[in-house]
Amino acid sequence: MGSIVLKFGGPATASTERIQEVAKKVIAEKERGFNVVVVTAAMGRTTKDLTRMARDLSDDVSKRELDVLLATSSQLTSALFAMALQELGYDAVSLTGWQAGVQTDSVHYNARINNVNVRRIEEHFAEGKVVVVAGEQGIDEHQNITTLGKGGAETTAIAIAASLKAERVDIYTNVDGVYTADPSYIPEAQKLKEISYDEMLELSNLGSHILHPRAVELAKKFQMPVIIRSSITEAEGTLLKEEVEMEKNLLVRGVAFESDIIRLTVGYDAYSDASLADMFTTLAENRINVDIIVQAIIDGVKPSVSFSIVKDEFADALRVLEDSKLSLGFSFADFEIGLSKISIIGSGMASNPGVAARMFDRLRREDIPVKMVSTSEIKVSVVVPQDDMIRAANALHEEFNLEEALHA
Amino acid sequence: MGSIVLKFGGPATASTERIQEVAKKVIAEKERGFNVVVVTAAMGRTTKDLTRMARDLSDDVSKRELDVLLATSSQLTSALFAMALQELGYDAVSLTGWQAGVQTDSVHYNARINNVNVRRIEEHFAEGKVVVVAGEQGIDEHQNITTLGKGGAETTAIAIAASLKAERVDIYTNVDGVYTADPSYIPEAQKLKEISYDEMLELSNLGSHILHPRAVELAKKFQMPVIIRSSITEAEGTLLKEEVEMEKNLLVRGVAFESDIIRLTVGYDAYSDASLADMFTTLAENRINVDIIVQAIIDGVKPSVSFSIVKDEFADALRVLEDSKLSLGFSFADFEIGLSKISIIGSGMASNPGVAARMFDRLRREDIPVKMVSTSEIKVSVVVPQDDMIRAANALHEEFNLEEALHA
Repeated sequence: MGSIVLKFGGPATASTERIQEVAKKVIAEKERGFNVVVVTAAMGRTTKDLTRMARDLSDDVSKRELDVLLATSSQLTSALFAMALQELGYDAVSLTGWQAGVQTDSVHYNARINNVNVRRIEEHFAEGKVVVVAGEQGIDEHQNITTLGKGGAETTAIAIAASLKAERVDIYTNVDGVYTADPSYIPEAQKLKEISYDEMLELSNLGSHILHPRAVELAKKFQMPVIIRSSITEAEGTLLKEEVEMEKNLLVRGVAFESDIIRLTVGYDAYSDASLADMFTTLAENRINVDIIVQAIIDGVKPSVSFSIVKDEFADALRVLEDSKLSLGFSFADFEIGLSKISIIGSGMASNPGVAARMFDRLRREDIPVKMVSTSEIKVSVVVPQDDMIRAANALHEEFNLEEALHA
Repeated sequence: MGSIVLKFGGPATASTERIQEVAKKVIAEKERGFNVVVVTAAMGRTTKDLTRMARDLSDDVSKRELDVLLATSSQLTSALFAMALQELGYDAVSLTGWQAGVQTDSVHYNARINNVNVRRIEEHFAEGKVVVVAGEQGIDEHQNITTLGKGGAETTAIAIAASLKAERVDIYTNVDGVYTADPSYIPEAQKLKEISYDEMLELSNLGSHILHPRAVELAKKFQMPVIIRSSITEAEGTLLKEEVEMEKNLLVRGVAFESDIIRLTVGYDAYSDASLADMFTTLAENRINVDIIVQAIIDGVKPSVSFSIVKDEFADALRVLEDSKLSLGFSFADFEIGLSKISIIGSGMASNPGVAARMFDRLRREDIPVKMVSTSEIKVSVVVPQDDMIRAANALHEEFNLEEALHA
């Protein structure tokens, strides 16, 4: 009998009523003859309450203890989920991370999965049980409870599926699939029937908060098929897999955008002063996530480097630059706020150098100034004024014919 | 270095503010040079919330899953407690039941401890850490999470202390010790400096809700000294130990009382119909706790048996009797409400048969009718009208000179 892994989180497990509802989706898969693992995320409200309690006690909470605290949240959801399945007349058993064999490194609050020993899950399969695993948690080699940080439950689902050699993973979300762009801003956005791991990876990294990049990476590594689908409707979702054959010729597969971007520029008096390595090491050590980096070293002009960060990290970034001005050797820093980032993604563009040019041309025709540019094999990102973001995204969506090509 | 085990629960861990307060008591013991284990109980509010959520999902919740759910509560308290100790500048680590080596049987929701493997606790001692154990939980031989039911945290504390060969266990409560009677009703009640395990066992069973009988039994079995003390004041507590030498001559050491008792009487037409075994087996199977049992088989009078139960179980008991009338073969049942139970306890009375007589005589002089009587080696219990309870308790407290003898 084949096995599948179903991941539920967010609104799908926010209340006992919702758990009762989505439990029926699990039963449907069980009735199709699968051995089913359900992976549950924490209840958001619970996590918030727990974090507040920890903050009440200390400004500098031990991450090991924070993990012990936070792990209770998905454990709780897993038990409730198992109860819901039992109430529907099905045999089910909940497992914590360590019971499910989820072995991680010791980086508390942001642990990585090293291995999943699925022996116990398989034993419960042999008993005919649906196995409900508390996602977002595991155990390190010293038998300490760890939590997996952002995207932890999705990553757990894919790691378990890989170890079980499961047929696929279904990620139940509050959207019914992956779209060519965010439908709340781009009326012409279309749901994709399929998308490749690489494309999804770019989308995940670019402000489409459907599936965390680390989960996509793991799925790609193990070539695990993943379906993004709705926990509310019965709509067909989007299949995430290696090769997307049906629409191979398509250059661009989606448009992603993100507001509240800030550009920081740092200038040096001389080439010899400018060490990019020092600059970005210092920022990284202070946990400032830098996205696009543009270095300008033009003859006769003083060298400078610009980089984009999200608004939330602006104050921290300024403080770090201020504190490190001497050691980093720069002579001035300035910034520009009110920016946004727009990206076009598609594995087809790797072999087609004209895509970026077409993007710039369309933006120029729309009178939208491009402040920064960044490219990869399968995406082009530009920073544009935030006021122009939605107009730019719609224009690019139209430019690359996304409204007609990809119907599921 | 010697070790001690400190148990906190109820109001002492009801909020982060209270945890911060009581953590100082732990530090004081650590500073005295002890290796310290803290055992935490669940937060009452959390347990209530969790149980409500389970009830939302099912009227017939799997006890295994209920345990997974409820175990999160003391796990949560243990992590918060460790954080509070760390904030005070001390190295601390929280352990769940399974991490602390608490091995139990598989009776979910009411598991018994089989063994505590304290290897990990001792390793943390070697690192200089205070170890905070989530009480009320363990793990069975199949690696399932269990919870220990009523008195679980105290029992965990004593089991860990026994395995560690600790010097003593301190039970922090909202009272500052064991009194000759409940001081809120008996103004003359005195705090006891010491009390024997057997006397405490009778007190625990008789409505003094300070320490659960199973914890007292375990302490007696391992001859573990236990101090009952206040989590709020610095007052000296009551030491629980095997022999109480100081007041050996004292006949009676305490008066306990409990209201809302109901007497049920079942009558039979003939001796041959009356099977006490069948009756009490049926009641036990339906989880009706029967306390005092009085059988009346008098020549010329139809046989009957009376027993006392608490008010909460009255409806259930009536239902069981109704359902089983035929198989149990009784011809009538009646009941009396508005009763209470009063007990005098003291290991000295074992060798003094006059104590019960003196009790009955005093009650007679007070015009308080005795409805039922039950005796053991070290206690005498009587059932009297609830309206007379406080008056009877005060009279007996005076009768046995408890107000003067026992000052700590």
